[in-house]
Amino acid sequence: MAKAPELEHPVKAFGWAARDTSGHLSPFNFSRRSTGDEDVRFKVLYCGICHTDLHNIKNEWGISLYPMVPGHEIVGEVTEVGSKVSKVKEGDKVGVGCMVGACHACESCNSNLENYCPKMILTYGSIYADRTVTYGGYSDTMVANERYIVRFPENLPLDAGAPLLCAGITVYSPLKYFGLAEPGKHVGIVGLGGLGHVGVKFAKAFGAKVTVISTSPSKKDEALKRLGADAFVVSRDPQQMQAAIGTLDGIIDTVSAAHPIVPLLGLLKPHGKLILVGVADKPLDLHVFPLIMGRKSVAGSGIGGMKETQEMIDFAAKHNITAEVEVISMDYVNTAMERLAKNDVRYRFVIDVGNTLAASKD
Amino acid sequence: MAKAPELEHPVKAFGWAARDTSGHLSPFNFSRRSTGDEDVRFKVLYCGICHTDLHNIKNEWGISLYPMVPGHEIVGEVTEVGSKVSKVKEGDKVGVGCMVGACHACESCNSNLENYCPKMILTYGSIYADRTVTYGGYSDTMVANERYIVRFPENLPLDAGAPLLCAGITVYSPLKYFGLAEPGKHVGIVGLGGLGHVGVKFAKAFGAKVTVISTSPSKKDEALKRLGADAFVVSRDPQQMQAAIGTLDGIIDTVSAAHPIVPLLGLLKPHGKLILVGVADKPLDLHVFPLIMGRKSVAGSGIGGMKETQEMIDFAAKHNITAEVEVISMDYVNTAMERLAKNDVRYRFVIDVGNTLAASKD
Repeated sequence: MAKAPELEHPVKAFGWAARDTSGHLSPFNFSRRSTGDEDVRFKVLYCGICHTDLHNIKNEWGISLYPMVPGHEIVGEVTEVGSKVSKVKEGDKVGVGCMVGACHACESCNSNLENYCPKMILTYGSIYADRTVTYGGYSDTMVANERYIVRFPENLPLDAGAPLLCAGITVYSPLKYFGLAEPGKHVGIVGLGGLGHVGVKFAKAFGAKVTVISTSPSKKDEALKRLGADAFVVSRDPQQMQAAIGTLDGIIDTVSAAHPIVPLLGLLKPHGKLILVGVADKPLDLHVFPLIMGRKSVAGSGIGGMKETQEMIDFAAKHNITAEVEVISMDYVNTAMERLAKNDVRYRFVIDVGNTLAASKD
Repeated sequence: MAKAPELEHPVKAFGWAARDTSGHLSPFNFSRRSTGDEDVRFKVLYCGICHTDLHNIKNEWGISLYPMVPGHEIVGEVTEVGSKVSKVKEGDKVGVGCMVGACHACESCNSNLENYCPKMILTYGSIYADRTVTYGGYSDTMVANERYIVRFPENLPLDAGAPLLCAGITVYSPLKYFGLAEPGKHVGIVGLGGLGHVGVKFAKAFGAKVTVISTSPSKKDEALKRLGADAFVVSRDPQQMQAAIGTLDGIIDTVSAAHPIVPLLGLLKPHGKLILVGVADKPLDLHVFPLIMGRKSVAGSGIGGMKETQEMIDFAAKHNITAEVEVISMDYVNTAMERLAKNDVRYRFVIDVGNTLAASKD
């Protein structure tokens, strides 16, 4: 028999958890392990709400473990470090993203790509090395092996910086890996949500020309004026799409619903790459001819390794890149989830855990 | 009004043509242009039968022009060269592959990738710069701009070398471009037909480890013993597929029918590439999750540029790579097409045009 979550570990913890596929979140007492030699413990200050959290609390991918404390865009202040920890010290600002463990022995781990390790352990809803369930950042305290701890530079705001730990690295990593992170490249960003809006910012900071491709004409002004994109194409407008044919070196496609990709392949130059970072629930229709005619690729990319995540955070701090966020209190989280399901947020909810979680206990 | 094919150009030509979507081929009198300053004229000796010819004579892609003289794996002996031609001289052995023209001004052309030029002109069934229809190699004489002429090294057999001009470059180019043409790489070849069997030979000559993936257990011996593959996996055998999971750096998928690609993506290592060179008539189901979990790609690749085609032919000559062929006479071509439709050939038909075409005229 597994112990009750409150009794599994020696350190008391409090957060909000979903108990079933309704996804409704409510206060939850649990526990965390004591600080190991290589562990960093921190008081959670902010936690972003990722669209993945919404999928997971409702078990939409069929792999959820309940009770579930979501949250993998977690920032806070270090309260304790293990004896072997050299990366950070008490009082430092740190973050934890989507993962807290991996095998550390495979080719991916040895290449600083823990995110592609077959044994990668997710920040919440996974089984940790000690066989207990992992709990995420909608909680007062967090502990993780220092390999999974990201140092937050002083000038990076904690609230608007938190979403970078997932949304940021999800777009940063493919821009780099697929050769799009340089001046002279023309990058398309499909979908202007949590991922897409930071995609625009990173691509611009790399010096690329950026075209936003969206179904919503209403986002044009915001894309061009607020986020700094160079062009905006309404994907439902055949004339605008026609005019953009063959112009892009690569596309970061952040849309997580099933959608036609042939029109997007048409926007690519020869040898262009369409990189999918949103997980559609249904298979996409892949027509082979458009791929062959221009030696084009459709690729996937999932977050990034810890080394690159640190690099991304440092780059963001240097270039003043943050997410556009709406900061909410803990007890607003269920309403926020409803709004998120309707895409009613520009562009990311961040929970002010540090100032509002304790009050929600009463 | 367009002139009759016999009267369009000054040079008389004879070949076999399809007249309608039945695809039935029969003797056909037409004409070819006189030898321009940059042109090379040659007597056709052999012409391979590509699966594309079968699609085209039956108008299966809906773009066929009749009468159609197929054939884009054409070799022969130079009979005349234009005043500006420096590449070859009378008596040289030469070949022409899938294309005879392009814009020569775009980024693709300037990068020696005429095959990806949007204005690329196919060897048959296309409209040439002079607005006449192009005719392929099932014919006695051929003329082409020297840019599209491939020099055949003395030691490369003309009959078994002919298919390299399409099948060879179709597999050679992606092996090189996608970084699979080197020792230490483990390459999968899906489908052991006209493309697949030369794919095995090139990949082995590059020093790669080669696994053939096929639905037909009966091809195992041939793959391993005759073609030199290192391993053979029956794609319908779940245990064999399971054992091969995560082992391949890249896959050249030569299958032209719609087929499931998720099992193939599973065979790839992280960052592996599935390269489609066969044109399926229906869209493939693209599941996004398997791509994201390993930063994998699905790409297309279509033949290669002329510079690379020459490089491929020279490499083949150096490493004694040819296609496995069944040489047939011109009047057997309709039977050959029927057999090809049933995949009843190991592995490529080649028409002995030089010795049998003239007799078919009577």
